[in-house]
Amino acid sequence: MKMLNIKLPKGTRDFTNKEIIKRKFLINIIIKNFKLFGFSPLETSSIEKISILKKVYEKENHKMLFNVINSVDLGLKKNALIYDLTVPLVRHIKMNLSKTLLPFKRYQIQKVWRAEKPQNGRFREFYQCDADIIGQKSFWQELEIILLCDKIFKDLKLKIEIKFNSIKILKEVASYLGLENKFKKFSIILDKYPKRNEKQTLSSILKLGCKKEKIKIFKFFFTIKNTFKKNIKSLTKILNIKSISEIKNLKRLYKLSKKINLDSSKLTFSPTLARGINYYSGIIFEIFYKEEKLSLAGGGRYKKLINSFKLNDNLSGIGVSFGLDRIYNILYKNKILKRKTKDRLDTIMFINFGDKEAFYSTKLIKKLRTYGISAFLYPKKIKIKKQIKYALKRKLSIVFLLGKKEKKNKILKIKLLANKEEMIFKNIEEFINCSLKFNKIKKKT
Amino acid sequence: MKMLNIKLPKGTRDFTNKEIIKRKFLINIIIKNFKLFGFSPLETSSIEKISILKKVYEKENHKMLFNVINSVDLGLKKNALIYDLTVPLVRHIKMNLSKTLLPFKRYQIQKVWRAEKPQNGRFREFYQCDADIIGQKSFWQELEIILLCDKIFKDLKLKIEIKFNSIKILKEVASYLGLENKFKKFSIILDKYPKRNEKQTLSSILKLGCKKEKIKIFKFFFTIKNTFKKNIKSLTKILNIKSISEIKNLKRLYKLSKKINLDSSKLTFSPTLARGINYYSGIIFEIFYKEEKLSLAGGGRYKKLINSFKLNDNLSGIGVSFGLDRIYNILYKNKILKRKTKDRLDTIMFINFGDKEAFYSTKLIKKLRTYGISAFLYPKKIKIKKQIKYALKRKLSIVFLLGKKEKKNKILKIKLLANKEEMIFKNIEEFINCSLKFNKIKKKT
Repeated sequence: MKMLNIKLPKGTRDFTNKEIIKRKFLINIIIKNFKLFGFSPLETSSIEKISILKKVYEKENHKMLFNVINSVDLGLKKNALIYDLTVPLVRHIKMNLSKTLLPFKRYQIQKVWRAEKPQNGRFREFYQCDADIIGQKSFWQELEIILLCDKIFKDLKLKIEIKFNSIKILKEVASYLGLENKFKKFSIILDKYPKRNEKQTLSSILKLGCKKEKIKIFKFFFTIKNTFKKNIKSLTKILNIKSISEIKNLKRLYKLSKKINLDSSKLTFSPTLARGINYYSGIIFEIFYKEEKLSLAGGGRYKKLINSFKLNDNLSGIGVSFGLDRIYNILYKNKILKRKTKDRLDTIMFINFGDKEAFYSTKLIKKLRTYGISAFLYPKKIKIKKQIKYALKRKLSIVFLLGKKEKKNKILKIKLLANKEEMIFKNIEEFINCSLKFNKIKKKT
Repeated sequence: MKMLNIKLPKGTRDFTNKEIIKRKFLINIIIKNFKLFGFSPLETSSIEKISILKKVYEKENHKMLFNVINSVDLGLKKNALIYDLTVPLVRHIKMNLSKTLLPFKRYQIQKVWRAEKPQNGRFREFYQCDADIIGQKSFWQELEIILLCDKIFKDLKLKIEIKFNSIKILKEVASYLGLENKFKKFSIILDKYPKRNEKQTLSSILKLGCKKEKIKIFKFFFTIKNTFKKNIKSLTKILNIKSISEIKNLKRLYKLSKKINLDSSKLTFSPTLARGINYYSGIIFEIFYKEEKLSLAGGGRYKKLINSFKLNDNLSGIGVSFGLDRIYNILYKNKILKRKTKDRLDTIMFINFGDKEAFYSTKLIKKLRTYGISAFLYPKKIKIKKQIKYALKRKLSIVFLLGKKEKKNKILKIKLLANKEEMIFKNIEEFINCSLKFNKIKKKT
C-alpha cells in the first residue's frame, strides 16, 4: 500500500476549537456593528460562472482564479471559486433586481480563494468580511462607512488611522503629469509606494513618460504634514483645478467627521493612496494600525463594476472590506484575544464507574441538559485518575463522582478541578440551583 | 459588447436575509445541543488533496468530486473541494495526532460540494452538519449519539423514528444468503429498497446468485411488526448465529434507550437498513419524519475510514450527519420557521430632511448605536412618503422625523409604522428608556 501524503493543499488551514472561540470574538463584534448600522446578511454561492469573473477582473488577476471542474458535465473552465465578495453581491442584485430594495445594505462574511503564492499571513483560502451599500451616491453613505470603521475599531480597542483619497483626484494628478492614458500603470506604482521608497517610485513614474519638472509635485505628496485644508488647497493650486465637486465632497466629509468626533480614528488625506483594485471610481480609503504598514481594512466608492453588469446607471456602490486575519493577529499580539478564552469551558464530565453507575449518571446528564447545562459521561471505565486527567486537559471545571456508594445513598458528589474541593448535593436540582448561583455554569438557552 | 449570461452555476444558490434568519434558527438549536453534549467546533479547509479523497471514497464516487485547478502551480487534479466532513476530520486528526485529546468530540457545519445531477432539493453546493466522537469504541458513545438526535428533534418539535441496524448483522445475512463476496452490491440493493418495491428488491438479490429458498428471510425483513426482542430472536434463529457480541450491544442499546425515555423518537430495528456509504463497520442508523421517505439524519460507527489513514487501530469513530436542507423544508412546511421571522427587524430609520437636519440626526444615530440600538439615516432628501415607503418595505417599526421644527425646538418626533402613531420625546435618553421598557427594541450587546 502506497503511503498517503497527509497534507493540506498549499495556503489552506484548519481552525481548532480554541482558534474558533477567539475568531468568533472578533467576528461577533464586527457583525454586531454591521447590524447596528442597518446592514443585513447575505450569503452567496462559493462558485461563480467564470465568464462573469473574467469580465470584471483585470487580465492579470485571471490567473489567480481557481477553476472548478467536474467530470460529469464537462464544466471545463466554466466555473471558478469566488475571488472576492463584491462580484457575487452585484451578480446577486442583477439576478434579483425586481425583489431588491434599494439602497441595499448587506454584509457578508465568507471564504474566498486566490491562487497567490502563500506567505506568512497570506492564504489561498481565507475569509473576507464586507459591508456594502448599493444604489445611492449620496455623501451620507461615505460618512456612514467611516463611522462604521470607527465604531468597530473602538469596540476592538484599537486606535487606527483612516487614510483617504479619491480616484477622481488621482486622475487629475495623472492628467497634470501627462499620464492620463497610463492611469492604471500609474496607480499601480503609487499603490506600491508604501512598500518601496521615494526614489524607486519616482523613477518608475519617470519611466512612464512623465516630464521631469512636474515630478516635483511628489515632494508635496511624500511629505504631507499640514492640515487637510491646507493640503487640499496646495493640491488644487498645483494642479490648477478650480473646483471639482469631488474636492467639495471630500472637504465636507472631512469636516463632518471632525465635528462628529471619531472615537478611535485619525482621518488623514493621503494623495499617494491608490488601492490596487480597478473598479473604484470615487473616494478610496485604507485603515492602518499605528506604524504597521499592513492595512487592516479598506474600501471605496465604485460604479465601474456595476456598469460591467449593465445595471441601472444610478446604482453606484460603496463598500468596506475588513482583513480578519490581520486584525486577528494584532488582537492576538495585544493579548486581547488571550483574555477572552481564559475562561474554562463550562462542560461537566461524569466519571465512569462501570455500567450501573454509568446509566445512573446518564439519566442525570439528560436532566442537566434540559436545564441548558452541558454535560457528558466519560465513555469507558478506566482508572479515575486517567479520567480526571482527560477533564483537566479539556480545561473543564467540574467532574461528577457517582460511584457505588453515592448511587446507593442517593447523593451527588462533585469535584472542583481548580482547587480539588469536593462538594455533596442532595439531588440534581440542588446542584443546578447552586451552580447557577455561583455563576460557575452559565445557563445557555 | 457581448451580453453576459448572469446565472449561478448549476446546483448552487444564494441565501437572502430572510432565509438566513430562518436557517439560523435551525442551526442555533443544533449547535446549542452539540455543545450541551460536550462537542467542540472544528473548521477545516474546503479543499483537500485529491490523493486523500480518492483513497477513501469508492471509485464510483470519484466522478462526483469537483477538481480545483489553478494556473499558477499547475495543480491539475491535485486538489478537490470536500465531499463530506468526515474525511477532513480524520485527516485533521492524523495531522495533529500528538495535540489531539482522545476521545475527540467535534461538531462541524460547513459547505461541501458534490457533482451530482441537481434536483428539487438536491444541490451541488450544500451544508453538512456533523457531530463525531473519535477514539472510543465504548457502547456509551452509541447511546450518546441517539440521545443527541432525540434532544435535537425534541427542541425542533418534530416526532421522529430512528431506524437502526448493524453492518455486522448485515454481513451475517449476506453470509446466510451465500453473498458474502458480493456484500457491497448486496448492501446497495438493500439501501435502495425504500424507494423500490419488494419484488424489485428480491429479483435484484436473486440475480446476485442467492438461492431461492433462502430468500424467504425477506418475508420477515419486509414485514417487521413484532417487538425488537422477538425480531432479534427470530433473526438469530433463522441465521443460526448463537450470539455475536454485536447483537448483545444492540439489545443493550435498545434496552437502555427505552429505560431512559426518549422524548421525541421511536427507536426501530430495521434489518433492511444498509446506508450507502462504504466506511461503516458497526451500528448504522437513519432518522425519518412521519411517513416521509426522506431521511433527516443518519450515521453510524466506522473504522475502515480511519484504517485507510493508518491511524492507531483503536481509533474507531461514530458520527451523525443532519440534513439541514431537508429539516429546514419540514420546519417550513409546519410553519415553525414562519413564526420565527414574523417579528419586525428592530432597526430605526431617520428621515432625511436635508443637510443640516441630517447631520443632527447622524449625531443622534451615533448615540443610539452606543446603546446597542441599530439605526441609520435615509441617504438622500427625497419625498418623505417615499422614505417611509422604504422603511415599510424593510419591515422597520420606527422612523424618526427630525425636521427643521423639531431640531429648533430640540424635541424628538418618532412615528410607529404599525399604527402610524406619532410620539414626542424630550431627548434621546428618554426615547432609549422608553423603547427599552416597551421592549420594542431589544438591547443588543
